[in-house]
Amino acid sequence: MTPVPSTLERARQIVEPEIEAAVTSLCPELIHPVRYHFGWEEVDGSPSLAKSGKGLRPALAVLSAEAVGAPAATGALGAVAVELIHNFSLIHDDIIDGDTKRRHRATVWKAFSVDDAVISGDALHTLAFQVLLEEPSSEKVEAASRLAKATTLMLAGQAADMAFNNQPVVTFEDCVSMEAGKTGALLGCAASIGAVLSRAQEAQIVALDNYGQKLGIAFQAVDDILGIWGNPEITGKPAGNDLRERKKSMPVAFTLSLKSSESEELEAMYAASNDLNELEIKKAMQLIEEAGGRERTQDEAQTQLKGALEALHSAEFHQRPLEELKEIAIFVRERDH
Amino acid sequence: MTPVPSTLERARQIVEPEIEAAVTSLCPELIHPVRYHFGWEEVDGSPSLAKSGKGLRPALAVLSAEAVGAPAATGALGAVAVELIHNFSLIHDDIIDGDTKRRHRATVWKAFSVDDAVISGDALHTLAFQVLLEEPSSEKVEAASRLAKATTLMLAGQAADMAFNNQPVVTFEDCVSMEAGKTGALLGCAASIGAVLSRAQEAQIVALDNYGQKLGIAFQAVDDILGIWGNPEITGKPAGNDLRERKKSMPVAFTLSLKSSESEELEAMYAASNDLNELEIKKAMQLIEEAGGRERTQDEAQTQLKGALEALHSAEFHQRPLEELKEIAIFVRERDH
Repeated sequence: MTPVPSTLERARQIVEPEIEAAVTSLCPELIHPVRYHFGWEEVDGSPSLAKSGKGLRPALAVLSAEAVGAPAATGALGAVAVELIHNFSLIHDDIIDGDTKRRHRATVWKAFSVDDAVISGDALHTLAFQVLLEEPSSEKVEAASRLAKATTLMLAGQAADMAFNNQPVVTFEDCVSMEAGKTGALLGCAASIGAVLSRAQEAQIVALDNYGQKLGIAFQAVDDILGIWGNPEITGKPAGNDLRERKKSMPVAFTLSLKSSESEELEAMYAASNDLNELEIKKAMQLIEEAGGRERTQDEAQTQLKGALEALHSAEFHQRPLEELKEIAIFVRERDH
Repeated sequence: MTPVPSTLERARQIVEPEIEAAVTSLCPELIHPVRYHFGWEEVDGSPSLAKSGKGLRPALAVLSAEAVGAPAATGALGAVAVELIHNFSLIHDDIIDGDTKRRHRATVWKAFSVDDAVISGDALHTLAFQVLLEEPSSEKVEAASRLAKATTLMLAGQAADMAFNNQPVVTFEDCVSMEAGKTGALLGCAASIGAVLSRAQEAQIVALDNYGQKLGIAFQAVDDILGIWGNPEITGKPAGNDLRERKKSMPVAFTLSLKSSESEELEAMYAASNDLNELEIKKAMQLIEEAGGRERTQDEAQTQLKGALEALHSAEFHQRPLEELKEIAIFVRERDH
């Protein structure tokens, strides 16, 4: 496995206790499914040893404060708010996508019920704004306003993604634009919210937001590659999983948009109603690879990461956190899980 | 039908175009189910002649600005934000309660899909905070902060209501406290948000918030009576509907909490797994009436309304809007739909 930058773990240790504290303000009925979702307890209420997510957003929020010369703690509140939004969207997305597993555990709707998942997500959604607004200052209000905009873009991306299911052909550009909303907007917010809370210069905030947005698209491009060609032992998902679910991810969209024999064959497989067997999945992987879908997606990841790193050069930042932001960008490209 | 105060229609004409304008900022995929929900178009996208809700919250928000001497327009932004939260919760509640009809039309999850309903609700939820925060001022921030708190209480009330299904006995007080969250908190916010946006005195804001909270509980108590004994031709729901759905509403909770033969008989009916037939529903109505559940709920509505009106006397308000707030309280008690 590609090693995860230590800065992610450092940020988690600062931010996670604050998320845990914020969650205790929820009503008793909702605390339990929410704590389960975060991997802090099991369905029966016992403590959990589950692994949490990579913690990319908390790290970006904390580093964005440090990058403009503020202490990590200044970014932590922003990290909490962004993580609450991110996790509300995960809980609701799992309902929408019908996903039964997340990080090797049953999703909230599967472990509890769709009803519990709807309302637990709603509660985290509100809580994100509440933590920023309960003792408001001009910078917290600015952070909340940006978070609301990013959340609207994220939901628009998710709605576009849902609409892809009913569109026979989705272009590569449609995919990138959908991911700019679904993943890029909130990552841009995460990567700048610490700077916003530190009353940084506008140029610094814009640079960090751009960095985060592009990092988000690159992250998703790599995700789309891992979703087809990832090592099942490392990703925890069977090979070709996105194809089995007939997801119109970037490599697939690229291939489908070509007017070639490969695209026609893949289109027919995607249009059929039967479950794809292992042989068909291998065939689809090969078709996409030959059509250049994998390479185009890798190029996109590379281009977006280059843009992300260039964005960091458009303003002045403190050296150590700047290096760590760059290290995160490299990790996003190199990661295998 | 009990006539609806003309102030509700006046507020609707001010507020509805502003909600419609706010909704146009959503992404194309979400505008359609949201416009359907508001009764502005049909599933096929054609204009709708559907009736919208009573518009209680917009009226309260507008009157709360006028009551402290500000123009109606000052309250309108608050009305938009509260209505967006209220409607997000309706869309999600209909999923949770499995309700297929709202205002004589299919609910969003039924007409579109659960997925569309989840994400459309989410989009309205975010939009509520976005409209208050996009050009922030100290009073808009205060309004957003109060709205977040009220939404958290509303969701806690909804979660408590869901938990009632798994509790064999729910007390009358449990019910009132659940409704104080589920309905009271947002009505308190609606009835004070116009005053908050008008930078009113703290005593005025507190008085209006108390009025709205108590009005909300009274509204729900009347709803619980109509849900059992309402005239089907006026309510649009079959007689005894809440009993058919085995809802633990106030009259039922009162009866179940008594240690009497009536409570035992009703408890057995609620514990059985068969669909209740017409004869059983009539029997349940009679049991609850004889046990005093209807009277106790009517008394509660009366007590809460008295408290609501008293709250209005704890601060100074402008005469005409004050009279209209009182008129709304009378309507809430007298209404038959």
